Amino acid sequence: MEHYLDNSATTRVSETVAAEVTRVMTETYGNPSSLHSLGIRAEEVLESSRSTVSRALGAEPDELYFTSGGTEANNLAILGAVEWLKRRGNKIVTTAVEHSSVDETMRYLESKGFEVVYIKPDESGRISAEQFAEVIDSRTILVSAMLVNNEVGAIYPIEKLRKIIDRAQSPAVLHCDCVQAFCKIPLKVKKMQIDIATVSGHKIHAPKGVGAIYIRKGLHIKPIHFGGEQEKKLRPGTEPLPLIAGFAQAVRDVNIGKNYAYVKDLCDYAREVLEPLGVVFNSPDDALPYILNLSVEGIRSETMLHFLAQREIYVSSGSACAKGKPSHVLSAMGLSKTQADSAIRVSFSADNTKADIDALRAAIEEGQNTLVKRK
Amino acid sequence: MEHYLDNSATTRVSETVAAEVTRVMTETYGNPSSLHSLGIRAEEVLESSRSTVSRALGAEPDELYFTSGGTEANNLAILGAVEWLKRRGNKIVTTAVEHSSVDETMRYLESKGFEVVYIKPDESGRISAEQFAEVIDSRTILVSAMLVNNEVGAIYPIEKLRKIIDRAQSPAVLHCDCVQAFCKIPLKVKKMQIDIATVSGHKIHAPKGVGAIYIRKGLHIKPIHFGGEQEKKLRPGTEPLPLIAGFAQAVRDVNIGKNYAYVKDLCDYAREVLEPLGVVFNSPDDALPYILNLSVEGIRSETMLHFLAQREIYVSSGSACAKGKPSHVLSAMGLSKTQADSAIRVSFSADNTKADIDALRAAIEEGQNTLVKRK
Repeated sequence: MEHYLDNSATTRVSETVAAEVTRVMTETYGNPSSLHSLGIRAEEVLESSRSTVSRALGAEPDELYFTSGGTEANNLAILGAVEWLKRRGNKIVTTAVEHSSVDETMRYLESKGFEVVYIKPDESGRISAEQFAEVIDSRTILVSAMLVNNEVGAIYPIEKLRKIIDRAQSPAVLHCDCVQAFCKIPLKVKKMQIDIATVSGHKIHAPKGVGAIYIRKGLHIKPIHFGGEQEKKLRPGTEPLPLIAGFAQAVRDVNIGKNYAYVKDLCDYAREVLEPLGVVFNSPDDALPYILNLSVEGIRSETMLHFLAQREIYVSSGSACAKGKPSHVLSAMGLSKTQADSAIRVSFSADNTKADIDALRAAIEEGQNTLVKRK
Repeated sequence: MEHYLDNSATTRVSETVAAEVTRVMTETYGNPSSLHSLGIRAEEVLESSRSTVSRALGAEPDELYFTSGGTEANNLAILGAVEWLKRRGNKIVTTAVEHSSVDETMRYLESKGFEVVYIKPDESGRISAEQFAEVIDSRTILVSAMLVNNEVGAIYPIEKLRKIIDRAQSPAVLHCDCVQAFCKIPLKVKKMQIDIATVSGHKIHAPKGVGAIYIRKGLHIKPIHFGGEQEKKLRPGTEPLPLIAGFAQAVRDVNIGKNYAYVKDLCDYAREVLEPLGVVFNSPDDALPYILNLSVEGIRSETMLHFLAQREIYVSSGSACAKGKPSHVLSAMGLSKTQADSAIRVSFSADNTKADIDALRAAIEEGQNTLVKRK
C-alpha cells in the first residue's frame, strides 16, 4: 500500500479533475482565440475557470491571469513589477526562505544592480511584522513574501505588510507567493491588501503545468513574454485549456474548512505518535498543518527518504525543486548541521489517513533501530 | 457532422494521447524532481519523452528542453540568445511574416535599441535565400525565421542560411520556429544546421500547454525564468509531465510520410473543387499542403467564418493568436485589401476526409449565392 506524504511537492490528480481534463482535451478542443463556435466554447470554459479560480482568491475574474505554473507566475510578478517600478527606487525586500522561483529571481535582480534585503526567520521558523518594518523604506519598490513556507509550513504576517509599506511612504508593490496556502486556508487578497498573488494547480490535485497570477485592478506590470493577444497580452501563448479547466475543477472540489480540520487532526496525530520516538519538529507549533518538517537525528535525510520509499512511504528532504541540495530554509532558521542534515518534510492532503501516519511511525522507528550508527 | 479545418490553430487531442495524459496524471503523478521512487518513475517518463521528441527533430536528448508551448519557446530562443550575444553586435534579421511570438519579441528588442530587419515575402508568399544574404552581415547576432508560415504554408529556405551566415562572417545564432513544420515534414536540425529550433505540442494532437526548444550542444543561451533545477535551470518550474508524456505519445503516433501523402491529396482535391468557384489561392503552389489560404472575394473573412461555423465547418481568418486582426502576413505579401479582407485559412490534419472538403465547397458556394453583395 502506497503512503504518499509528499503533497507539498505535488499531488495526485483527482478522478474528477482527470475527467474534466480529458473532457476538454477531446471535446472542447478549440483554440480559445478562434473566432468560430468551437473557439467560443473553449473561451467560455476559459472564462468560467477564471471566475472559479479568482473567486477562491477573493478577486475579480479580470484580475486573474493563467500561467504555466507557480514559477512562471512568481517570475512574472517580480520581474514585471520591478520593470514597471524601477524608476522609483531600487530596493526590494523579501525573505531568506522563499521558494527558489522567487529566490533565484532575486539573485538575478541583484546581478542587475538591485539591492535585495532577505529577512531571516528565527529558529522556530517565524518572521515578525516588525522585521519587515525595520527594512521597508521609501526606496523600496517591491515586497515579496510567501504566505506559507513550503518547507516548514510557517505562516508569515502578510496581512500586516500593506500598513507597514504605507507608513514607510514606500511605493512598493506587495507580492505574495500563495502557492502553499491556496485552497488550504481561506484567502482574501483584497482584505489582505495584496497587490499580486501567485498560485499553482498541481499542489491541489490539478495537473502540473498551470498556475495563475492575481494582479490588483489598476496595478500595472510588464509582461515577460511577448506574442499573441491572450491574457490581455500579459501572458501570450495559447492557453492550456485542459489544464485550466482541471485547475478550476480542483478548486471547486476543495472544501477548505473541512479539509483543514481533517488535516489538522492528522498532523496533531503525527506529532503525537512521532514525539515519543525522539524526533525533533522543525515546523513551528502554529505552522500550517499540511506541512510537518522533522528531524530524525542520526539519520541523514536522503537515507531516511530512501528507506521510507522502500516501504512505499513518500516524503521529501526539503523542497522537491532543490533536488536534494541542502535546504536554504533550514539553514536560514539557524538549525544545527546535524538537525538540518536529518530533516524530512512530511506533507499531507485530505486523501491521507491515520494509516499513512502509522506506517510512517513504524518505518521511522524501524529506521532508528537499523540505520542509526551505533556510537 | 463536424468539419474541423482549423488544425493550424490547434488540433483535437487524439484518444491515445488523452489516455497517456490520464495515465500520467493519475499514476505517474510524482514530481520528477522528487528523490523517492515515485519521483524517479516520473523522471523516467520525462527522459523517455525527451528522447522521443528530440529524435523527431534529429537531435540528442540533452539538446532538448520542454517549455509551456511555442510562445515561451520562441521567447526563450530569441531573448536568451540575444542576451548572450549582445556584446557582439546589435543587428537581428527576421521576416515580416513570423508568428506573433517572434514578431512581438522583435518589437520589444527594437524598443531596447536593437536593429531588426524584417524580410518581406513576394506576392506569392515566398522568401528567397538571396533576400537573407542581402541583409545578414558581420554585426548580425541572430537570424530568426520560421520554416513553414502559419497562415499561408509557405516554406522558407532555412537550410541555406547557415552558409549565408558564415559567408557574412556573422556570429549569428540561427533560430528556426518549426511549430507548423514539426511532424509534418521530416526535420533534421543537424543537417539543416539550425542552432535553435522551437516546436509545440498542440498542433500535432497533443494538449495545449507544452512545447520544446532544441539548443545545439555547446551553444549558450540565457534563461528568461529563474527558479529550481529543472531542465538544467534553463527552464525552471515543475515539468508538466502529463502534457510532456502526451506530447511524446503524439510524436510516436505520427507517420510523417503517410500523413503527408494523405494530406497532399486532400489539399490537391480542395484546390481542384474550389477553383471552379472562383476563389483565389493565397498559398503558394509549393506550400506545405497542411495549410490552404484562400480568398472568396466579396465576402469578408469573418462573415464567411461565421457562415461556415453555422454549418459546423471550422476555419480561421488569419492566425488564431491574432484574434481577427488584419493579417500582417497577407499585408506583407502585398495582397490587395479586398483579397486580404476575404481571406480564410483552411488547415488540415490526417483526421480530415474529402467529405470535409465537399462540405466546405458546398458551403462556400452557398455563401457566394447568399452573402455576396449584389452590385
